[in-house]
Amino acid sequence: MTERIHATYWLETGVDPLLAADVIAGEQSSGTFVALPTETPELKARSGARVERLDILGRAAHPSLPGGIESKVYTQCALELSWPIGNLGPSLPNLMSTIAGNLFELRQVSGLRLTGLRLPPSFARAYPGPAFGIEGTRRLAGVARGPLIGTIIKPSVGLSPDETAQQVRELVAGGIDFIKDDELQGDGPHCPFDERVRAVMRVVNEHADRTGKKAMVAFNLTGDLDQMKRRHDLVLAEGGTCVMAVLNSIGLVGMHELRRHSQLPIHAHRAGWGYLSRSPQLGWDYAPWQMIWRLAGADHLHVNGLRNKFSEPDDSVIDAARAVLAPVMPEAPMPAMPVFSSGQTGLQAADTYAAIGCADLIHTAGGGIFGHPGGVATGVEALREAWVAAIEGVPLERHAERNPALRAALGFWR
Amino acid sequence: MTERIHATYWLETGVDPLLAADVIAGEQSSGTFVALPTETPELKARSGARVERLDILGRAAHPSLPGGIESKVYTQCALELSWPIGNLGPSLPNLMSTIAGNLFELRQVSGLRLTGLRLPPSFARAYPGPAFGIEGTRRLAGVARGPLIGTIIKPSVGLSPDETAQQVRELVAGGIDFIKDDELQGDGPHCPFDERVRAVMRVVNEHADRTGKKAMVAFNLTGDLDQMKRRHDLVLAEGGTCVMAVLNSIGLVGMHELRRHSQLPIHAHRAGWGYLSRSPQLGWDYAPWQMIWRLAGADHLHVNGLRNKFSEPDDSVIDAARAVLAPVMPEAPMPAMPVFSSGQTGLQAADTYAAIGCADLIHTAGGGIFGHPGGVATGVEALREAWVAAIEGVPLERHAERNPALRAALGFWR
Repeated sequence: MTERIHATYWLETGVDPLLAADVIAGEQSSGTFVALPTETPELKARSGARVERLDILGRAAHPSLPGGIESKVYTQCALELSWPIGNLGPSLPNLMSTIAGNLFELRQVSGLRLTGLRLPPSFARAYPGPAFGIEGTRRLAGVARGPLIGTIIKPSVGLSPDETAQQVRELVAGGIDFIKDDELQGDGPHCPFDERVRAVMRVVNEHADRTGKKAMVAFNLTGDLDQMKRRHDLVLAEGGTCVMAVLNSIGLVGMHELRRHSQLPIHAHRAGWGYLSRSPQLGWDYAPWQMIWRLAGADHLHVNGLRNKFSEPDDSVIDAARAVLAPVMPEAPMPAMPVFSSGQTGLQAADTYAAIGCADLIHTAGGGIFGHPGGVATGVEALREAWVAAIEGVPLERHAERNPALRAALGFWR
Repeated sequence: MTERIHATYWLETGVDPLLAADVIAGEQSSGTFVALPTETPELKARSGARVERLDILGRAAHPSLPGGIESKVYTQCALELSWPIGNLGPSLPNLMSTIAGNLFELRQVSGLRLTGLRLPPSFARAYPGPAFGIEGTRRLAGVARGPLIGTIIKPSVGLSPDETAQQVRELVAGGIDFIKDDELQGDGPHCPFDERVRAVMRVVNEHADRTGKKAMVAFNLTGDLDQMKRRHDLVLAEGGTCVMAVLNSIGLVGMHELRRHSQLPIHAHRAGWGYLSRSPQLGWDYAPWQMIWRLAGADHLHVNGLRNKFSEPDDSVIDAARAVLAPVMPEAPMPAMPVFSSGQTGLQAADTYAAIGCADLIHTAGGGIFGHPGGVATGVEALREAWVAAIEGVPLERHAERNPALRAALGFWR
């Protein structure tokens, strides 16, 4: 039996939903607006996308998006389509054109969102997935259990390489596990990548030589391909243990090439995710999106955080984190590490742990660490202890009774 | 004076628009949610994004997008921000993170759309732009004046290489200028790229040897980088004159690398454009989007067509085409060719010409050519004559009086 690709959508349409589903299936495979004599029944049976499921969810009086066929009622449905692998082969770029191409522009559509993806094993043979994932990240960061406690260099841009290194000095002295560049900090003239890496790694290596603990620093090497390769090589040569790339900025080919070249975990930032997802009736859910990038090689994937300072609700954050922790497919789990950030403190530890059932994650906090009256080291300790409490199932207040760092943190976290 | 990058947005916010503008500027440069002592006035003056303009456009009672700060009134504005080049350097991937990063997710935003972009000359020194553009395309296609008359192989997928070549045989015999693969047709097992190129180019070359006219065929080489390079080399070796790539599927790094490697014009497909643009209150206008891809090297850019079968209104189509024809910047025009498609016939020629003021374009029609009762050659002639009429300012009916092919076409185009 031939392999098939399955994608699910939330669909809203002003026409008969069965017709809309057929139009989408046709547009994304052998059909076109006008029936062609060359689209024979045999060709359609072999190459046509198939409507596997169409469940009516509800109806609305107004269309979610403009430009569609006008109607008195708009039907909302769960749609599942499938494609034979013969149409495109196990190619991630061509998968994108197939499951997320012209279909969003159809007039039979007044809302369309890609909600799920199921790929056949040939994709796992064609793409390597994360080279390090959870286990490799833990090994390089020297964190065997619990989350990696992390932070982001702030201000996002504007610090010189030396000022950045100064901030890193304070952080590694405080025992932090993970530090990342902001996604805006690449290789600008004011803070050139090479100088920044050298200055920061001097601090990180000195601390590691002295204490045996080397913090993982995700240097944002986002750029053109040659630049990314050269920057990666510098990080590796300087003893660094992680690189970071902004997925929407480099694209699938960039990620695939970076993965092929990299000897370090790839910290994958999703900046731009808002324009792909903020309209609930358009674009992408995180589950199918992150699956594509994991196949291409992302080791860490951002998922925002509970009670974050952005517009994303908590249930969406948890769905995203669970998706990153779920197997890409039974034959090839390709585990990656979710990264929680934005407005994070120890107060979110227990809820986060309860929702995802493990601590295989990076938890980054800014104010939640730097704001601690006892300083960075105490801030890091407090966040770590909040996770100890979460994992042991001890209420935060009770755990704080025997931990002064946590006790002091509760005051300013709230 | 330091170079600055300027971007304009349509913004809707539930808070004071000045505050929202400041939050966006801060999030995308040196600011963060919590004021930091390290964000000194000097640092902010040097590295902060600047609010250049904020014009109130109107107010709404309900937010366009969910997740924002709730309010009784939502203010809609035109916002212009600028960034110093020192933050990122002339890097297209880092430009993406800067102008289209986390800002769409802010709670101070209930609608945000990137409407314009103005780049400093350093970007034109860092990126080559189209290698062929309008003049190079005309030269390779052998079309000195008027639009390139084109079509798309249909069914989109499902034909074998030989069946594809058979369709091409009919088209080149009919005198067509331009043929393209559908964006779904890449290198699937049922129609492998190499076999397709060899079969099609045999037909195209035979015809060219006999008649002196070589149709330009845009072969869709979308894939991983090595695949794209190898496929490009095959097209070149077989005497082909164009390659095609799906921009959202390969990403900026893919396009930049393809441009560096390619010795042929790059026909750039925008499949997926719908998820970037269909919500009027979110995402991207075409003008800034196409500018980035032109800098990276796109020679032809899809713009849909007037009275198309998709959901895009005509004014948006014309804005897109004008953007593709406008200079990237005064110092570096980097001209590219707009590609009109979807439900196109000669009936749109005059309106298209009137709206954009030139015929430096590719006009693709499917049913508008194949449906002609006189066959493909007569269909191509009819579409070409419709453009002659448009350019000469002669009404279509009058021109049809002295052209039987056009006269017959008017019957089925309507």
